Amino acid sequence: MASVFQIKHRDLAARIGTIKTNHGKIETPTLFPVVNPNIQTIKPKNLQKYGAQQLITNSYILYKNYRDEVLKKGVHKLLGFDGPIMTDSGAFQLMGYGDIDVSNKEIIEFQDSIDVDIGVILDIPTAEEDYDKVRQNVALTTERAKEAQQYINDKRLWCGPVQGSIYTDLLKESAAEMSKLNFDIHPLGSVVPYLMRYKYKEHVNLIIEAKRILPADRPVHLFGAGHPMFFAFAVGLGIDLFDSAAYALFAKQDRYITVQGTLKIHDIEYLPCSCPVCVSTTAKELRQLPDKERELALSEHNLYVTFGEINAIKQAIVDGTLWELIEQRAKAHPSLYAAKNTMERRMDYMDDYDPYTKRHFFDLSRSTQYTPQAKRAKARIESIKGVMTFIPKLGEVPRTLANCFPFQQFVTTEDFKLERERDKEKMIRDVSRYWFGIDVFPKKISIILSPKTKKIREVRDENNALLATVRATDYLMLPHAASIELHKTKYPRVMIDTEVSEFILEGKSVFAKHVKKVDDKIVYGMPVLVVDENNRLLASGEAKMSSKEMRDFDSGVAVDTRWANPSGENRETSKTAQRSSQTSGYKQRVN
Amino acid sequence: MASVFQIKHRDLAARIGTIKTNHGKIETPTLFPVVNPNIQTIKPKNLQKYGAQQLITNSYILYKNYRDEVLKKGVHKLLGFDGPIMTDSGAFQLMGYGDIDVSNKEIIEFQDSIDVDIGVILDIPTAEEDYDKVRQNVALTTERAKEAQQYINDKRLWCGPVQGSIYTDLLKESAAEMSKLNFDIHPLGSVVPYLMRYKYKEHVNLIIEAKRILPADRPVHLFGAGHPMFFAFAVGLGIDLFDSAAYALFAKQDRYITVQGTLKIHDIEYLPCSCPVCVSTTAKELRQLPDKERELALSEHNLYVTFGEINAIKQAIVDGTLWELIEQRAKAHPSLYAAKNTMERRMDYMDDYDPYTKRHFFDLSRSTQYTPQAKRAKARIESIKGVMTFIPKLGEVPRTLANCFPFQQFVTTEDFKLERERDKEKMIRDVSRYWFGIDVFPKKISIILSPKTKKIREVRDENNALLATVRATDYLMLPHAASIELHKTKYPRVMIDTEVSEFILEGKSVFAKHVKKVDDKIVYGMPVLVVDENNRLLASGEAKMSSKEMRDFDSGVAVDTRWANPSGENRETSKTAQRSSQTSGYKQRVN
Repeated sequence: MASVFQIKHRDLAARIGTIKTNHGKIETPTLFPVVNPNIQTIKPKNLQKYGAQQLITNSYILYKNYRDEVLKKGVHKLLGFDGPIMTDSGAFQLMGYGDIDVSNKEIIEFQDSIDVDIGVILDIPTAEEDYDKVRQNVALTTERAKEAQQYINDKRLWCGPVQGSIYTDLLKESAAEMSKLNFDIHPLGSVVPYLMRYKYKEHVNLIIEAKRILPADRPVHLFGAGHPMFFAFAVGLGIDLFDSAAYALFAKQDRYITVQGTLKIHDIEYLPCSCPVCVSTTAKELRQLPDKERELALSEHNLYVTFGEINAIKQAIVDGTLWELIEQRAKAHPSLYAAKNTMERRMDYMDDYDPYTKRHFFDLSRSTQYTPQAKRAKARIESIKGVMTFIPKLGEVPRTLANCFPFQQFVTTEDFKLERERDKEKMIRDVSRYWFGIDVFPKKISIILSPKTKKIREVRDENNALLATVRATDYLMLPHAASIELHKTKYPRVMIDTEVSEFILEGKSVFAKHVKKVDDKIVYGMPVLVVDENNRLLASGEAKMSSKEMRDFDSGVAVDTRWANPSGENRETSKTAQRSSQTSGYKQRVN
Repeated sequence: MASVFQIKHRDLAARIGTIKTNHGKIETPTLFPVVNPNIQTIKPKNLQKYGAQQLITNSYILYKNYRDEVLKKGVHKLLGFDGPIMTDSGAFQLMGYGDIDVSNKEIIEFQDSIDVDIGVILDIPTAEEDYDKVRQNVALTTERAKEAQQYINDKRLWCGPVQGSIYTDLLKESAAEMSKLNFDIHPLGSVVPYLMRYKYKEHVNLIIEAKRILPADRPVHLFGAGHPMFFAFAVGLGIDLFDSAAYALFAKQDRYITVQGTLKIHDIEYLPCSCPVCVSTTAKELRQLPDKERELALSEHNLYVTFGEINAIKQAIVDGTLWELIEQRAKAHPSLYAAKNTMERRMDYMDDYDPYTKRHFFDLSRSTQYTPQAKRAKARIESIKGVMTFIPKLGEVPRTLANCFPFQQFVTTEDFKLERERDKEKMIRDVSRYWFGIDVFPKKISIILSPKTKKIREVRDENNALLATVRATDYLMLPHAASIELHKTKYPRVMIDTEVSEFILEGKSVFAKHVKKVDDKIVYGMPVLVVDENNRLLASGEAKMSSKEMRDFDSGVAVDTRWANPSGENRETSKTAQRSSQTSGYKQRVN
């Protein structure tokens, strides 16, 4: 089965992607507004006005109250909504009321019959804190998920919820079991009661543990996380989907959502928002509206601000500034600040996905020197000697690297003058050491500059063969013929099916489905080597996926080939063969 | 002349206030959109839609291009705008083009004739960095301001611009000279070129130096600061007014304003905003609009987001969370982060205005223990012994004070259990020591609890006379008869005209115009003593102004009297008289 999910942009562990459904694409990260068929404060057909392309409703309520009608019309006609519709299974009712009178099989077949786009099995969410109870429910959910395999089909998307409450070992077990089964989306299902109590830092760890195990090509839905104050954090950790009843429930309680938290409408003097509702009224006028109108106005505002935050997060992903947005959001409440601190401590997780270079590197904290960007850069310069230039917060940096990311990108208000090396050859050999760990170039090289900017563009050998190119903005080096030299080292590589070697040698891109094995620590934008199953060098290029994504995805480009080995016959030495056998991470597909 | 400015809410050095003009009140902080009479992308009459109740236009352009028409119609009819209109004098043109053919007298009389609400003299802004040049221009501006005194009148409001560029001594001199003259509003005028280069941290210091000198009852306008990314910082420092041509100029250059900075429309994939423009279109659609329509749409968005930020700031002032908002905004760009750090180092300035207690005290940074709230609290508990309870970040705190601000208000995610004293008498005597430095109570007291919450409400003596009340939310103590005991100490007092003593003894509020002398370090919400010119105790109550405001304001309530001295005859001892003569800060009105 090809992945239904495709990634367009990345930042930290966040991704902007698309999920294909029978009623159109869903662009993630996004949120499903919860529509209660019994109470429709906002009509489903009007949801798009606020930015919602999809909705979620409850199949158990439909089953109990609208069965004949919805079986006849289908869920889209019943609700008057053309876009993707997800249904929950009634599991949340189960948590609230203890038991419901429908079986796993029945509710799955019902969702199938009413033509939902995304359905959920009847899992057993657990709010309880009793370990044994949670363990039982995780086991039972796994059983149900296995049972469900015979009822679900390829006609629509199916969710395999991960349970485990706050117990990391149970959560990991649940994620591992669900990963093996044939599901398209994984909701994290058991944390709602914790979210309600602002226990965000605990969530950071739970999300990381689950995400590390779940396949990268399956979107992850954080069930019950409808408040936008936590969206940036969750998305940064790789959460793709949210649902929200909060927009309507809060409105009923006169509560006004902001990205900083929730205000009671009676405490507001100035509506801190420029949504269409808030620019056309005042807090006082809102308070004086009749109940139903006030509820509608607040629901509308709550939806606008919720999708406004989704867009702000998406644009931050495009800009590579999601961490800065998280830092901003963190300063609104101690629970968010604590969540940010926990993320900072677990930056190694995000580091496995975070793109190789960015447009900016901002000095925004006392600990700027401890950010992954700074730490990565410092590790790379350790062995490089020569004349240094001082950069505040970053320390002494070889002046040959002044044009390289992140030094060139560093923005601070502290005074300093970045000194640059004038000797271009010295510079380019250090740039190679910086990115690749070695000087990949032969003794005689020629260096091609941009006529306009005088920046290095290419390095060629004495026969004018292209050895490497250099990107003007951040001096990222992409090896061409120099790949052969680089191949003698442990530099990260992607191993593909020997069967498709011919295509790669012709310069074609590497598709994820052909990746057999891949080194760790590959991230989007990183130059990588491409080898066959015998570690023969086929090509080099720019990684378009991280290591885990290359392992998990069945479709999409893994490496954008920039250089193909013209000889294609470069036999490895026994020594590099030995080294390559240490390469970790055999690709394992779970279904 | 009674102050045209009245303060409604305060936080840090920020204030929400109103300025009376001939065409209605202006509520501050706010912004004047710049309307160029020649180019009206957005018609003045439509400005209110975006939140603008007022505008600024250029009297020099009117003088050159529309003289006869505007002299006949007046500026409001010419622009088709009923609200307050401010005019600039052409000084900015002077800076751009070196010289203009109009005199100070002419442009003042012209502004008078066209019936502006707020006019400006022809000052000489200086962008140059040459010290002597700036010094000359400051002197010349002062001369012009003095000359202007004969042409300006009470029929409208007049601005006395403060110059001095980046030179603190010149800026202070300019502020001191302007303060002595009869102006209603003081623009800070010479910093535009620095704002354009994001030199925000330098601004923090310049604003503080000027504000310390300028009278508190005159609104301060930061000329040329039209980008909302710096508003929260400037308002926190006490800036009341901004003007912005940026909304329109940026739109012309395809630039999209956000509170985090500026985006080029071509770099945007997701409009990170929920204003009416952004929810009804996409970035792609915006780019494809014809030039004029795109310019209008961007101008509209830029205005919406600008006034949205004004409202967010105002609501934060109401909530007492402006510092948290500043911390959020600071994480968007290194220049803002540096500005925040500079503000943190100069917190002593904001401390002179920051309200006495707040609703929350959030743990949002590694340096929470160094915030003014924490430092003030720690200084107060130093001499209080007894059983301690541990609060993360704040350390050991006497458990008798667990209900007091800021301990009760502290929100952190770190685990701790606030232990409370059970012995109510022990508790209340420590609460007195905490707020007043001494135990103000006699040996025998009775303590009145709320029947519901069991919190202390009142302390009475053995004759049932009310000694003090305690506020449930933060245990702030207001002295009643205990004021007599407190009066024997150096506790801060407000000295009033002996002439109005009778009114105060009747329990009337203290008006600012009757304040003769006031101790430093009084802030809004603090209990204070009220004495006559011989330091006889008249009353006590809650300060409704800070020390500087009491000195500078000619109208409004300075102290809300809660207890009036029934004897009114409490002669001071020679010792306290001596102490009281050390009290600093004689009230000096400058005009």
